[in-house]
Amino acid sequence: MTAKVDFFYEFASTYSYPAAMRIDRVAEAAGVTVNWRPFLLGPIFAAAGMTTSPFNTQPAKGRYMWRDLERICQADRLALKRPDPFPQNSLLAARIAQALPDDGKRAAFSRAVYVAEFGEGADIAVPETLGRILEKLGIPAAPLIVQAGSDSVKQALRAAVDEAKAHGMFGAPNVVTSDGELFWGNDRLDAAIAWAARIG
Amino acid sequence: MTAKVDFFYEFASTYSYPAAMRIDRVAEAAGVTVNWRPFLLGPIFAAAGMTTSPFNTQPAKGRYMWRDLERICQADRLALKRPDPFPQNSLLAARIAQALPDDGKRAAFSRAVYVAEFGEGADIAVPETLGRILEKLGIPAAPLIVQAGSDSVKQALRAAVDEAKAHGMFGAPNVVTSDGELFWGNDRLDAAIAWAARIG
Repeated sequence: MTAKVDFFYEFASTYSYPAAMRIDRVAEAAGVTVNWRPFLLGPIFAAAGMTTSPFNTQPAKGRYMWRDLERICQADRLALKRPDPFPQNSLLAARIAQALPDDGKRAAFSRAVYVAEFGEGADIAVPETLGRILEKLGIPAAPLIVQAGSDSVKQALRAAVDEAKAHGMFGAPNVVTSDGELFWGNDRLDAAIAWAARIG
Repeated sequence: MTAKVDFFYEFASTYSYPAAMRIDRVAEAAGVTVNWRPFLLGPIFAAAGMTTSPFNTQPAKGRYMWRDLERICQADRLALKRPDPFPQNSLLAARIAQALPDDGKRAAFSRAVYVAEFGEGADIAVPETLGRILEKLGIPAAPLIVQAGSDSVKQALRAAVDEAKAHGMFGAPNVVTSDGELFWGNDRLDAAIAWAARIG
């Protein structure tokens, strides 16, 4: 049996960018399969009384994060361009990712969204940005954007948020192993994959 | 010339514990010298409108931190016992560390405080706990505790907090390299030492 992990990512989350770009590579090397699980931090932040990113409400933490992300992107050879506004409204991107099958298409779309948002500074709240990404991947954009607004997709995304809460998530990205162990942050990605490979 | 880093640590900070226990080892292997710089997060948190640890105000984050610290301590073969109350009042410990010369005594005292606090769950706000640690290190406790209350020590610690703020610190532990680069967290300790070794 192949070891599996759930990768919970939020499109507005900065550290989800380098994590999304490398998780399949790290997991594959360890013989671990990744379930790509888009979710939303907004409802979790709101329930904790937060109205925006802590990187905005705590200026010193925000300044540090951008510099830290710059170092990480440099080491990982990833482009970095700060999107405006930050954080981005990630709802439509998350619904489209949820609507796509998790057979490689969802991962490819998600990586392309992160590259557009944090590599090129594009606004991912704009349907045209997401439509262009889908078309580049050979996926007809219009029907998928319609499907992304369906009740079943909305419900699936809400269920993902509920699952994220139940796992104790409070930030992004996260990896959850099959025994329910939670690993938070791009910094814990390697430990999470090693854990998954060990428990099998 | 030997590369040097400033290690800014707060005795109440959980992740400062594993960092303090390994930084000299990691730095020595890279030919880097560590300046041990006790400081206080309290005034920095207060200036940001926070009255206690975010691990207390955000329960999910707190639960995750204790589990994460457990995994780290297990990997590093460090004992872990949660002190009560948390966070501990770290003022006297910080003043004593500041009063000690940074010639190995300050580092040895600081490590011993972390072991007592997070390895044994002792209350480090109690002078007896700190006195016992000093005596074990062969340092007469009474005169040092008097010296820790002197104006010069208080002022030196306040200056350390001002320096921490000027470097943009918002948490602990931190490593600052001689070119002013800030690295936050036990997770960035290795990157910080590698950076210091590279710039020389």
